Amino acid sequence: MSTRKKQTSPRAAFQGEPGAFSHQAALDLLGPAVVVQPCTRFEDVFVALRDGQVDAAVIPIENTLHGSVHENYDHLLHFDFRIVAETNVRIVHNLIARPGVRFKDVKHVFSHPVAINQCLDFFAANPQIQREPFYDTAGSVKMVVAEGLRDAAAIASAVSAEIYGAKILKRSIEDDRQNITRFFLLRRPDQPAFVLADQAKKGWKTSLVFTVRNIPGSLFRALSAFALRDISIIKIESRPLRGRPWEYLFYLDLIGSTAEQRVQRALAHLQELADMLRVLGCYRA
Amino acid sequence: MSTRKKQTSPRAAFQGEPGAFSHQAALDLLGPAVVVQPCTRFEDVFVALRDGQVDAAVIPIENTLHGSVHENYDHLLHFDFRIVAETNVRIVHNLIARPGVRFKDVKHVFSHPVAINQCLDFFAANPQIQREPFYDTAGSVKMVVAEGLRDAAAIASAVSAEIYGAKILKRSIEDDRQNITRFFLLRRPDQPAFVLADQAKKGWKTSLVFTVRNIPGSLFRALSAFALRDISIIKIESRPLRGRPWEYLFYLDLIGSTAEQRVQRALAHLQELADMLRVLGCYRA
Repeated sequence: MSTRKKQTSPRAAFQGEPGAFSHQAALDLLGPAVVVQPCTRFEDVFVALRDGQVDAAVIPIENTLHGSVHENYDHLLHFDFRIVAETNVRIVHNLIARPGVRFKDVKHVFSHPVAINQCLDFFAANPQIQREPFYDTAGSVKMVVAEGLRDAAAIASAVSAEIYGAKILKRSIEDDRQNITRFFLLRRPDQPAFVLADQAKKGWKTSLVFTVRNIPGSLFRALSAFALRDISIIKIESRPLRGRPWEYLFYLDLIGSTAEQRVQRALAHLQELADMLRVLGCYRA
Repeated sequence: MSTRKKQTSPRAAFQGEPGAFSHQAALDLLGPAVVVQPCTRFEDVFVALRDGQVDAAVIPIENTLHGSVHENYDHLLHFDFRIVAETNVRIVHNLIARPGVRFKDVKHVFSHPVAINQCLDFFAANPQIQREPFYDTAGSVKMVVAEGLRDAAAIASAVSAEIYGAKILKRSIEDDRQNITRFFLLRRPDQPAFVLADQAKKGWKTSLVFTVRNIPGSLFRALSAFALRDISIIKIESRPLRGRPWEYLFYLDLIGSTAEQRVQRALAHLQELADMLRVLGCYRA
């Protein structure tokens, strides 16, 4: 890292095109001055942070409809980063076109098939519109603008309309308003956290991963480390370990900070009971 | 239900086109005589079973890369069905074209963007090939055959090549061999299970869902119902309840059958501790 004064424009890597929902998360987490580095794969995002190309990484970790992004939990285990913040982004799909295009002109709508399938009520109400699958939500906005299409629109985030100079024709056309993705902001262990606040005050979460052998009661014993100290668990999820049929990973989020003595004691207790324990990060809830 | 003799060709609903991985799961679960009813949305699959249009429903419930399909867990809670069987399908992506097309002729490859993104090593090794997003994996096979394309191929399951009379040019071009989806076979409570076997023998799993209030230790106490009876838990996952900020759903799979007394006693014990408890099904592991 450079020894210059603290950078005012942090660089962040994320997976997807500029304007993707991960880009929105990066803006929420790091402010409008963030300089983004879009990547093709999730792994590229982690490599960019490891190699110092960026100051931080932004990754989706779970979605209310689709569950946890196991691939990113795997990368969290493999790379040695810290979770320093989280944010929730509501997935709002907007109908977006070139300036000058009116809704009644629209005959074709381009977007990622997952986004199209989350707007089926809109298509049912507008049978004159043809659905056109495209690579990427934000990329479909870029395309309808670049190609100068006058009878087409895209489905994507509001931020992608801004980025590509397009216009929102209809806001929030998604079927389900409860489609929310949780993102983590990651830093390397040698980097200071962006937000330096009182770690002992309320409102912190700690995320960890551990393994226990699959003997009956092993998870019960592991949870005793928290139950006996009145620590609330707000997420728990098991995952079979690849190639080790009777061993499991558990992802766990708890309310509390690693600066609190009772959390430190609970982690020391869990360390006795678990084969492996890693604290992934401690951050504001 | 008809009073005729037991049907030899069960009808099963699933989400996707004929040849989708859910179709493969239906073949694994119900045999080659299964008559399939493809649906647009997961909800349509549940409605088809509720309304008696089909004898069974086949739904994906979790994937090793992408986690649990929360939407289907929601439908399992809302509809009153039983899980009667499970199967694991390895997601194998094949390059498929019209008969007569050779690999060196292929300039364009169509598929769902999620499938394309799971074959990035293949595209890196074959830069002469253009990636073309399409709605659906199996639908892209149907299209390249129907349109008579001579310079194009699709990425999809082996079963879709069979269905549309196409040829597999390259097998298993996916980056990650550990991409496995778990499917459930569902029946209505008034229907007998397809497989009638000894419920008391080993090798059964039971899936359930319950809620406890988020007071510290409530999950620990709930798990005591199983730990105190030496019952192994093989999946546990928490999910916040919509609109009730401090309450959680837990999905849990255990090794054992509801025909066993210790499982019955554990469920009676959990019933005392939980606000809500539903057994979703008991089926062969």
